[in-house]
Amino acid sequence: MAHQLLKGKKGIIFGALDERSIAWKTALACVAEGAEITLSNAPIALRMGKINELAKLCNAEVIPADATSTADLDNLMQKAMEIHGGKLDFMLHSIGMSPNVRKNFSYTETNYENFLKTLDISALSLHRVLQSAKKADALNEWGSVVALTYIAAQRAFPGYNDMADAKAMLESIARSFGYHYGFAKKVRVNTVSQSPTVTTAGSGVAGFDVFLDYAEKMSPLGNASAEQCADYCVSLFSDYTRMVTMQNLFHDGGFSFTGVSTPIVEDITKANTL
Amino acid sequence: MAHQLLKGKKGIIFGALDERSIAWKTALACVAEGAEITLSNAPIALRMGKINELAKLCNAEVIPADATSTADLDNLMQKAMEIHGGKLDFMLHSIGMSPNVRKNFSYTETNYENFLKTLDISALSLHRVLQSAKKADALNEWGSVVALTYIAAQRAFPGYNDMADAKAMLESIARSFGYHYGFAKKVRVNTVSQSPTVTTAGSGVAGFDVFLDYAEKMSPLGNASAEQCADYCVSLFSDYTRMVTMQNLFHDGGFSFTGVSTPIVEDITKANTL
Amino acid sequence: MAHQLLKGKKGIIFGALDERSIAWKTALACVAEGAEITLSNAPIALRMGKINELAKLCNAEVIPADATSTADLDNLMQKAMEIHGGKLDFMLHSIGMSPNVRKNFSYTETNYENFLKTLDISALSLHRVLQSAKKADALNEWGSVVALTYIAAQRAFPGYNDMADAKAMLESIARSFGYHYGFAKKVRVNTVSQSPTVTTAGSGVAGFDVFLDYAEKMSPLGNASAEQCADYCVSLFSDYTRMVTMQNLFHDGGFSFTGVSTPIVEDITKANTL
Amino acid sequence: MAHQLLKGKKGIIFGALDERSIAWKTALACVAEGAEITLSNAPIALRMGKINELAKLCNAEVIPADATSTADLDNLMQKAMEIHGGKLDFMLHSIGMSPNVRKNFSYTETNYENFLKTLDISALSLHRVLQSAKKADALNEWGSVVALTYIAAQRAFPGYNDMADAKAMLESIARSFGYHYGFAKKVRVNTVSQSPTVTTAGSGVAGFDVFLDYAEKMSPLGNASAEQCADYCVSLFSDYTRMVTMQNLFHDGGFSFTGVSTPIVEDITKANTL
Repeated sequence: MAHQLLKGKKGIIFGALDERSIAWKTALACVAEGAEITLSNAPIALRMGKINELAKLCNAEVIPADATSTADLDNLMQKAMEIHGGKLDFMLHSIGMSPNVRKNFSYTETNYENFLKTLDISALSLHRVLQSAKKADALNEWGSVVALTYIAAQRAFPGYNDMADAKAMLESIARSFGYHYGFAKKVRVNTVSQSPTVTTAGSGVAGFDVFLDYAEKMSPLGNASAEQCADYCVSLFSDYTRMVTMQNLFHDGGFSFTGVSTPIVEDITKANTL
Repeated sequence: MAHQLLKGKKGIIFGALDERSIAWKTALACVAEGAEITLSNAPIALRMGKINELAKLCNAEVIPADATSTADLDNLMQKAMEIHGGKLDFMLHSIGMSPNVRKNFSYTETNYENFLKTLDISALSLHRVLQSAKKADALNEWGSVVALTYIAAQRAFPGYNDMADAKAMLESIARSFGYHYGFAKKVRVNTVSQSPTVTTAGSGVAGFDVFLDYAEKMSPLGNASAEQCADYCVSLFSDYTRMVTMQNLFHDGGFSFTGVSTPIVEDITKANTL
Repeated sequence: MAHQLLKGKKGIIFGALDERSIAWKTALACVAEGAEITLSNAPIALRMGKINELAKLCNAEVIPADATSTADLDNLMQKAMEIHGGKLDFMLHSIGMSPNVRKNFSYTETNYENFLKTLDISALSLHRVLQSAKKADALNEWGSVVALTYIAAQRAFPGYNDMADAKAMLESIARSFGYHYGFAKKVRVNTVSQSPTVTTAGSGVAGFDVFLDYAEKMSPLGNASAEQCADYCVSLFSDYTRMVTMQNLFHDGGFSFTGVSTPIVEDITKANTL
Repeated sequence: MAHQLLKGKKGIIFGALDERSIAWKTALACVAEGAEITLSNAPIALRMGKINELAKLCNAEVIPADATSTADLDNLMQKAMEIHGGKLDFMLHSIGMSPNVRKNFSYTETNYENFLKTLDISALSLHRVLQSAKKADALNEWGSVVALTYIAAQRAFPGYNDMADAKAMLESIARSFGYHYGFAKKVRVNTVSQSPTVTTAGSGVAGFDVFLDYAEKMSPLGNASAEQCADYCVSLFSDYTRMVTMQNLFHDGGFSFTGVSTPIVEDITKANTL
């Protein structure tokens, strides 16, 4: 798609690692829609990923920032405003990491230092981004901030571990900060609760293939792809959705409002008849 | 259990058909807890069921009332107050029927006359009960009204047909009327969203056995039984829960807040490997 | 806005009465975005309103249809496909009326014949529209249906009367039908929960001015206008939101996720100090 | 009330500070209902409060435990089982503190070290309590754990600051851990979302008096008191509610499902006419 929906708009995309990332697809989609963007990611992710490739495709600069560092984020806001010659209009927060998941600590035998790191990286980082932006007055009125989340924030998905609690907190931060930023500067803040997606990040979760299949069968429209998520984010950055704020928006083909589906009942029946 | 939790309280139990009914178990539980009750059901249900057996066990009178008839309900309120020598303290609404389900109309090829009957019998009846009670001033302050519902009001369960929409409306009536009755007379109104239960009513739904198994495997505590639902209703009629109103309370062993469970993932895996 | 977002798409807009109607604004917005549309409303509304004026502006035909009549809706689907030379892509349901509100029946002294009419007109009509569309196979894959609703479906707003219960049912129908239509034809169905809006319909509610002021003060971005709602509907009809279905989407400047706001606290303080 | 609802049951009550605390009232209510309890609080709270007075009234021992210390909690579980001669049946988590609130950091100019402490003390502590209990196998089957929370977890209340995000996370932990503890040991975990309550903790929030008045006027049954909350907790510890788990239960007189109330509309009207 390319309707110049974001023509004249400027934004920051956090968290593009490689071509499977939702943030990668969103960066491309925003540029295709006429936006100018700046890319940011943690220094370690910059080394591991291919962000320079993306930067070329997007004609964008890359500003490293550790999303747990207020100093880095303050610097990013200043740099981005310099690059774009003024205030910004949108930001995508696609940042999450759980040391407990990586190191195979189960949820009920968790490591609390890791847990606090999960929260700091995956949830509090959204607050830091917003606070740095507000302090620098970096967003125009009607600016739009979107953070990616997952339905494990509402319902238990055992494989999702402490990321579930981090996402619940992330969604709360969107509401809490959205209240203040809305009254102060007409800036809107929302979260998008996306289908499980085959990304380098998502694929770390145990049993991910079966889970993808389950989600596909429970979703009347099937699982949403990373490209489709990028399109949806474009709509949320555009002026068509100016009065949408403080919400968690499901982008999952109907998964979240399906209690059971015929394909799943068929699988259960099949499993039971063995 | 028997802690005389409802000692001195009086109530009406709607919808006991036979010993598998939740209303039947609730009637017995209320009496065991020291309450006096009156039983009511539609004339046709009285003929088909065994309510007189229950009436003996409960030392209760049976007052027929078609829950779609205001005149019947007005009469019931008067009679019940005469029987009990004053105002009442609680009511259980366990009333629901879908002609579309009975006659095998699918949801997307529904019959609208039937649909309106489903709504009238299964949802509007709660409003009628409450309106008749309020008009007759039949409930003491801090009286408690509970209506049974199902999670299909929140999420799609294809077998549940038009009852899903009726239950969504029922839960809304509990909130709407609960607001007014709360301010006016401190009466509370709630719905209990119960696990699928093997009752004569519940067993009419297609594929019910597989569905029961699915719900059991998705519920960390397993499916809640009719007896357990009766106990929960007792707690909601008691003075321990006076400030709970206008809510939909899940009584389902954790089903409603489980996104996926290990046993279900195992079944899907098994089905996929065939 | 005009980005040709709906170029090549065809749709039906239900419920445009006059230039204050959300449906009116949505019709104009869809045409500005490149869509072809057909207008429909109840025969009586066609006589009272100015729909022919809108039809000229939109280069659209007007097909009368009573949304409680399956025959009328079946006819509409056929006619619309003839007019547009094939299947449709979107539909807006902006239909609601409560005889109880019109005739000043209070919610706790309601008239049940009126109540059933409220349900039939304001909620079941969405099912009829969808069933007629599905039967006629009138919607292309990835077609999008939006119905307008209000937060009284989730929380008590005393002035909203039986419309609250009708809207709760409407939202349930969107989920229930969305499940089936999604699996069958990839059609998505959502509801948009809009700020209170000064329309000819909305202004019938008692104390509407004070209520508008309350909502404005409780909404970090202020109340959403009819024009903004039209823009949001365009985004939901477009291909940017293909995987969004079975949801209730708030378009209300943050009202629904604000528990209390500073301006409201100030008003309460002021009122208390008198 | 005293129906010996908890006869033979044993539990731990966290967070009783003085006679205004909900935990204090809950301790008394549990003992009045026949339970044996152990009291616990942070060492500093023990010095500031009057817990020894409560201990006498309850014939209970006091075991200090910093709820951010796994070692302290592990010790507590062992000691409590020694004291009671076996496993426990219930626990109340009434623990929360925000250094940002205490030190007057506003939400949008927060201090992140403080914020992480808020999370550790007010939310992660529930995980620690549950993990220590599970590791020690300290809870009998059908044991019940309740944590107190507030509706700021769902909707923005500006005065509640970072506690809102902590409570959202707390409620997520109840769901996440409740899933695992339910399948493993039939233990249930719920949160109770209580009306604003005049406690030593609650009264620290800015503008609390006006806010109490607002909540009172928005609640059809009025604000729930600490005593009523204690009664409700008793019902959740009892065997009447065995199948209730992973839920957030509102105990607030209807506040959470009221969108606006007549008394609030009157206040707004009054304020506007000045």
